[in-house]
Amino acid sequence: MIKVSIIGGAGYTAGELLRLLNHHPETEVISVMSRSHKGKLVSDAHLDLEGETELVFSDKLKPDSDVIFLCSGHGKSKEIIESELISSAIKVIDLSSDFRIKNSDHNFIYGLPELNREEIKSAHHIANPGCFATCIQLSLLPLASVGLLNDDVHVTAITGSTGAGQNHSSTTHFSWRSNNASVYKAFTHQHLGEIKQSLNQLQNEFNNDIHFIPMRGAFARGILAACYLKIEASEAEIKKLYQGYYSSNPFVHLSETELDVKRVVNTNKAILHLKKEGGQILITGVIDNLVKGASGQAIQNMNLMFGLEETTGLNLKSSVF
Amino acid sequence: MIKVSIIGGAGYTAGELLRLLNHHPETEVISVMSRSHKGKLVSDAHLDLEGETELVFSDKLKPDSDVIFLCSGHGKSKEIIESELISSAIKVIDLSSDFRIKNSDHNFIYGLPELNREEIKSAHHIANPGCFATCIQLSLLPLASVGLLNDDVHVTAITGSTGAGQNHSSTTHFSWRSNNASVYKAFTHQHLGEIKQSLNQLQNEFNNDIHFIPMRGAFARGILAACYLKIEASEAEIKKLYQGYYSSNPFVHLSETELDVKRVVNTNKAILHLKKEGGQILITGVIDNLVKGASGQAIQNMNLMFGLEETTGLNLKSSVF
Amino acid sequence: MIKVSIIGGAGYTAGELLRLLNHHPETEVISVMSRSHKGKLVSDAHLDLEGETELVFSDKLKPDSDVIFLCSGHGKSKEIIESELISSAIKVIDLSSDFRIKNSDHNFIYGLPELNREEIKSAHHIANPGCFATCIQLSLLPLASVGLLNDDVHVTAITGSTGAGQNHSSTTHFSWRSNNASVYKAFTHQHLGEIKQSLNQLQNEFNNDIHFIPMRGAFARGILAACYLKIEASEAEIKKLYQGYYSSNPFVHLSETELDVKRVVNTNKAILHLKKEGGQILITGVIDNLVKGASGQAIQNMNLMFGLEETTGLNLKSSVF
Amino acid sequence: MIKVSIIGGAGYTAGELLRLLNHHPETEVISVMSRSHKGKLVSDAHLDLEGETELVFSDKLKPDSDVIFLCSGHGKSKEIIESELISSAIKVIDLSSDFRIKNSDHNFIYGLPELNREEIKSAHHIANPGCFATCIQLSLLPLASVGLLNDDVHVTAITGSTGAGQNHSSTTHFSWRSNNASVYKAFTHQHLGEIKQSLNQLQNEFNNDIHFIPMRGAFARGILAACYLKIEASEAEIKKLYQGYYSSNPFVHLSETELDVKRVVNTNKAILHLKKEGGQILITGVIDNLVKGASGQAIQNMNLMFGLEETTGLNLKSSVF
Repeated sequence: MIKVSIIGGAGYTAGELLRLLNHHPETEVISVMSRSHKGKLVSDAHLDLEGETELVFSDKLKPDSDVIFLCSGHGKSKEIIESELISSAIKVIDLSSDFRIKNSDHNFIYGLPELNREEIKSAHHIANPGCFATCIQLSLLPLASVGLLNDDVHVTAITGSTGAGQNHSSTTHFSWRSNNASVYKAFTHQHLGEIKQSLNQLQNEFNNDIHFIPMRGAFARGILAACYLKIEASEAEIKKLYQGYYSSNPFVHLSETELDVKRVVNTNKAILHLKKEGGQILITGVIDNLVKGASGQAIQNMNLMFGLEETTGLNLKSSVF
Repeated sequence: MIKVSIIGGAGYTAGELLRLLNHHPETEVISVMSRSHKGKLVSDAHLDLEGETELVFSDKLKPDSDVIFLCSGHGKSKEIIESELISSAIKVIDLSSDFRIKNSDHNFIYGLPELNREEIKSAHHIANPGCFATCIQLSLLPLASVGLLNDDVHVTAITGSTGAGQNHSSTTHFSWRSNNASVYKAFTHQHLGEIKQSLNQLQNEFNNDIHFIPMRGAFARGILAACYLKIEASEAEIKKLYQGYYSSNPFVHLSETELDVKRVVNTNKAILHLKKEGGQILITGVIDNLVKGASGQAIQNMNLMFGLEETTGLNLKSSVF
Repeated sequence: MIKVSIIGGAGYTAGELLRLLNHHPETEVISVMSRSHKGKLVSDAHLDLEGETELVFSDKLKPDSDVIFLCSGHGKSKEIIESELISSAIKVIDLSSDFRIKNSDHNFIYGLPELNREEIKSAHHIANPGCFATCIQLSLLPLASVGLLNDDVHVTAITGSTGAGQNHSSTTHFSWRSNNASVYKAFTHQHLGEIKQSLNQLQNEFNNDIHFIPMRGAFARGILAACYLKIEASEAEIKKLYQGYYSSNPFVHLSETELDVKRVVNTNKAILHLKKEGGQILITGVIDNLVKGASGQAIQNMNLMFGLEETTGLNLKSSVF
Repeated sequence: MIKVSIIGGAGYTAGELLRLLNHHPETEVISVMSRSHKGKLVSDAHLDLEGETELVFSDKLKPDSDVIFLCSGHGKSKEIIESELISSAIKVIDLSSDFRIKNSDHNFIYGLPELNREEIKSAHHIANPGCFATCIQLSLLPLASVGLLNDDVHVTAITGSTGAGQNHSSTTHFSWRSNNASVYKAFTHQHLGEIKQSLNQLQNEFNNDIHFIPMRGAFARGILAACYLKIEASEAEIKKLYQGYYSSNPFVHLSETELDVKRVVNTNKAILHLKKEGGQILITGVIDNLVKGASGQAIQNMNLMFGLEETTGLNLKSSVF
């Protein structure tokens, strides 16, 4: 059994990790850290876990952990890593954005299995991708892999409220967000950096703009992204390319039918739909932001790092409605 | 023109008052007080008012106000009234619960026009009813008026999130409240006091229990209440009684079709539906908690206090969807 | 492996069965019947199953089925059973209401494991309970088991839209149902019959009324029921009673915190909360109407009928948000 | 009083017209036609109108109508106009798409007041714009008016469910649409024709592509559109241009704060927000699809045609939540 600890255990991504790890046959959660919740039952913060766990939040890490998931939020992971709280023998999977951009200061591997599967298998430190970034990269990587990104890319994507975490803000208030839609951070979303880094990894000379309009949707879970660009290749050629690229990737599926967010909610799947119209290829993609966009992908990375079947504990029943 | 001031101008009920007063032909809003928002545009707190008002929040009350609406929240109205901030010449309509229960310490009239129309006309101080209380009283008053409340009354009612105000809490977070339902304050909701007071005003000897199960719904506006009790009278007799009781009340309607919350959303209407089954009469009622359950009713009271037609400024277009 | 067939495979409960059976380690789905969808991919009707199944709808039943789930809708199961379409060697689990009421004409066992576990283990034909009925019975059975139902019972319960199936109607249209709430079938809901039958099974002399107000909620999945009645016993005594009654029931949990529907969504759990106030005991319960209220319970019954661990394939990750 | 008749009176746009006309001081609705609802109360089809109207659906048009609104759906208006059902003396405002594209066969004026105010004033027949088309045109017209559309335009826009009318379909079912988002008709939406026609009216040589990704949102009312293109002009210059263009247009407002759909819900307003970033100008716009996107705009056109103040009956209270 892999001994797992979680730092930052009271937030949404930690809750989702716990939900998933409860059903993972090869792991045992040995400590869940949260300074703010120290001494409380984990099932008092994550109420749906009532009856599934007796764990109590602690402010100390169990030293015999095999792997630690960092769920403390952006900016804090760097502090934690540098504080020597974590012994160098322990593998780390960081769900924050702190180590996603390559840099001579750290040795984190960018944990998108569909891009870096082999490096992940031997990695000691993983930077788990962002949720929008995961959906958009899965939509574009096959094109980059054969150098077909030769024009500006246009992206519009809509996210559920859980993407904003459990902190309260005017845009997570039910009275505001229900029955609503809005645009934010147009052209400047922080995930653009990791998206470009990955595309350049496959297509070094790609230097066009990615115009990204993020939207907030009136739903709690999921992301839908629509990406399009001018392209010469035919729809049939592009479909073949995507089928080939994803043939050994158990969580990515191509669909002939138009997509909606709920097709993948509560699963680790990504589904893509391709359509060419008037010289543009449109790639629509859907994921669950908390699963494939965060905690499910973190477990997928863990599975690879520990030599398990990639899908272990991740064959999840969709909730769909 | 009636000169209106609002104290506690940044909250939901104040916003709704401003929306309504903007379309009221006989009023002019002369000051909107908010210590926390002092100096900001009113339309920066109530963004939908963009283009409709140039008002700025102030921390001073204009002394030439004819009427003041108190929207500061429960417990604060008493403080304000006792502080002599408000000159005794100014009429006051208080939207908090501070003065709803009769008491020798104050002279506020309970502002439910369907119960106290004549007293309201000559009142100087009005205690505006609670939202649940309004819906439940309108459902039961005709029975009390002829002494037909002779058994325990069972009430279940569901409210939109705006009923909880704009403060952030775990139960107003979109990620929690969307797609959800929950029970709270079962049997102990604070509106029971004012409900019983009004029923006893009409049926002095009524002394049965009112068993009230409040629920939180996955919607922003509106209340639906279902009240039932054992009764001898026939459905036809009861319908006749309700028609008579409400015949001169412009905002209360009886419907032969089953009700849903959106039938009245964004209006000052209350719609009631009556059904007798197996010895029980069921009265279902719907109102908009922010309009008939708060700010619309406050304006209805103002209209009565100033000798205006009761419906002035309150013939509102439903949003329905 | 248990060979499973489904009749009426295009509806919501059949879709949910397929989702669950895909993750059940001891079953193989060998035929999915649907006359209207004959020849189409199952994943074209249940789009979230894309990539998880290659099954095609058929109009013929595979004769070597070990068990058949009937999902054809109320009234049709009786026809199917009488038509001799199904050989007498095959076990049947019927999700309709056709055989829930005991009757000398049939030998179906009422499939509520928390009431009839032993009978289910040796049953050949199971009538799977209704969704409201499941939630309300789980809330009341412990009281009936010791004869504590000695007054009228008051029930209010709210259901998600999937409870109405996938047929289109004015009350399942998004424009109507979103942001809304409504009452229907007050006092006359068809599940009252099976509820009373079960309560009388444990407390033969119970003869009081159950006053049931069903509501439609603005959510897709889940049921919350609030039941109350007058009772002498203390809250502590009643909690002890419930703990005892459910001690060997893996899916029923008692919670000290107030409940909401999303605590159990996408799981086979039922969670109950007990509160005594002013002489009344309030039992609030939540289930997922499609899982514990339909297809999950059907599989729980199948597990019992085939001598499997009751929880096999039913340890599901909650979606919670 | 203007005598108004409505053909196709049972649908969403007709319902919204009736809601608006009930509060319009200069109109009287004299007949509401619907073959399917003949003889029924109008308030039985539009239940929120309970208590506001005694009208009954008819299958005959009152011949003394001054103006007729056609709400029968796309394709049917042409039939009706050609059938001579409507005498040539009666003004017509058609809410379908049948006459929006200019054509020597008809004399309908495209009824977007912000583009064609003067022509509308003297028009006899009006083609009322589409909902997406209204929002997108208002976002782009000022640029076209000075020839600044000199590159491809990218548009993503999300619509509420009422935009699809009240017919039942899989994408209007609550169980599907709640908590969801989806893309449809990418690059091929039928409103592109009228949008291009209007842009060319102001900027004849505009010949670039408009890449339009429509989305379905989990809300009932409203449209948000985000349009962007490469542009030389500065943000300040563009803001000045928009202020000038809309200075005499009472329903169009510029906002310095980011937009959301609910800022305009239940009003005839359009609010626009401008932001330049990296050489692109982004114009975000919001309208209510049933009001400014349909029935409100139709009444705005009627007001202009009959010499009334343009805003008559259209100063509406926002519902905002």
